[in-house]
Amino acid sequence: MTIDKNTDAEMKIPPLYMTFFMLALLMGCYEPKEIHEDAALFSKGEKITNDKFTGTAWLYMLATPDSLNAMYAGLVTFEPGARTNWHSHPTGQILIATKGEGYYQEEGESKRVLRQGETIKCLPNIKHWHGASSNSEFAHIAISDREKGPAQWFQPVTDKVYNGN
Amino acid sequence: MTIDKNTDAEMKIPPLYMTFFMLALLMGCYEPKEIHEDAALFSKGEKITNDKFTGTAWLYMLATPDSLNAMYAGLVTFEPGARTNWHSHPTGQILIATKGEGYYQEEGESKRVLRQGETIKCLPNIKHWHGASSNSEFAHIAISDREKGPAQWFQPVTDKVYNGN
Repeated sequence: MTIDKNTDAEMKIPPLYMTFFMLALLMGCYEPKEIHEDAALFSKGEKITNDKFTGTAWLYMLATPDSLNAMYAGLVTFEPGARTNWHSHPTGQILIATKGEGYYQEEGESKRVLRQGETIKCLPNIKHWHGASSNSEFAHIAISDREKGPAQWFQPVTDKVYNGN
Repeated sequence: MTIDKNTDAEMKIPPLYMTFFMLALLMGCYEPKEIHEDAALFSKGEKITNDKFTGTAWLYMLATPDSLNAMYAGLVTFEPGARTNWHSHPTGQILIATKGEGYYQEEGESKRVLRQGETIKCLPNIKHWHGASSNSEFAHIAISDREKGPAQWFQPVTDKVYNGN
């Protein structure tokens, strides 16, 4: 291996040039961070204050149901440990996980792990719950239809069920 | 203004320290870029080869319709200039823009610009088209329902309409 004889020497750099060079490098670093922040597509919306959830969750409505088009979609963001109560939808539901790791469970079935980018299609009138895992925030787009009426809501998901299989 | 007498001096820095410092700075810059790449939630899926589109578009199905839950959702990615033909849905549609800038137009109405994070709710049987703007890739999640039958497809969107208001 050849070592340039200058590597042991001391390089002389005017400090103002040095400062500008460092600044340029550091400013270059900030750009990708801004892009990353833009990657959060939607607002978290409003904190959910009804009694249909355990823990803290947020709702950002994307499309509301009306008499001409009964479909609706909303982004739900769950803090770690937060989850819906048991509930069912008369026309079923589609869940598209957009952030973190969460759970989905139908009554009588095992709990499933849902990760960012994965989708669940739930059949009509199947009792189920969904929410964040205990150590990750979780967000999903929830899609359903009010044509056959609203969702039916049942009891909270106990810690025993939440922590079970 | 007081100028430190050292600003005109030359700073002496061993070149090896300097190299490691630069490398550390530059390596720090790469991390947010990796996060940004993870922000592409879904695959682009398969190139669309039917004659219902102008230009190049891609489909990644998120949820397919079936006899028990007729709702469906798919991510459509349009290259710049690409668009659907005119079409309509018997139960309407929800479009959630997830990337870039595109257009949405209903027959007899002005063309609307749709940007990442914005949503359109389209009424049943309204003839419309959607696609990328001419200088931006565009992606949206398209949500509809097959309960009242499939979408109806019409003629391609001419360049005159595409470039109009």
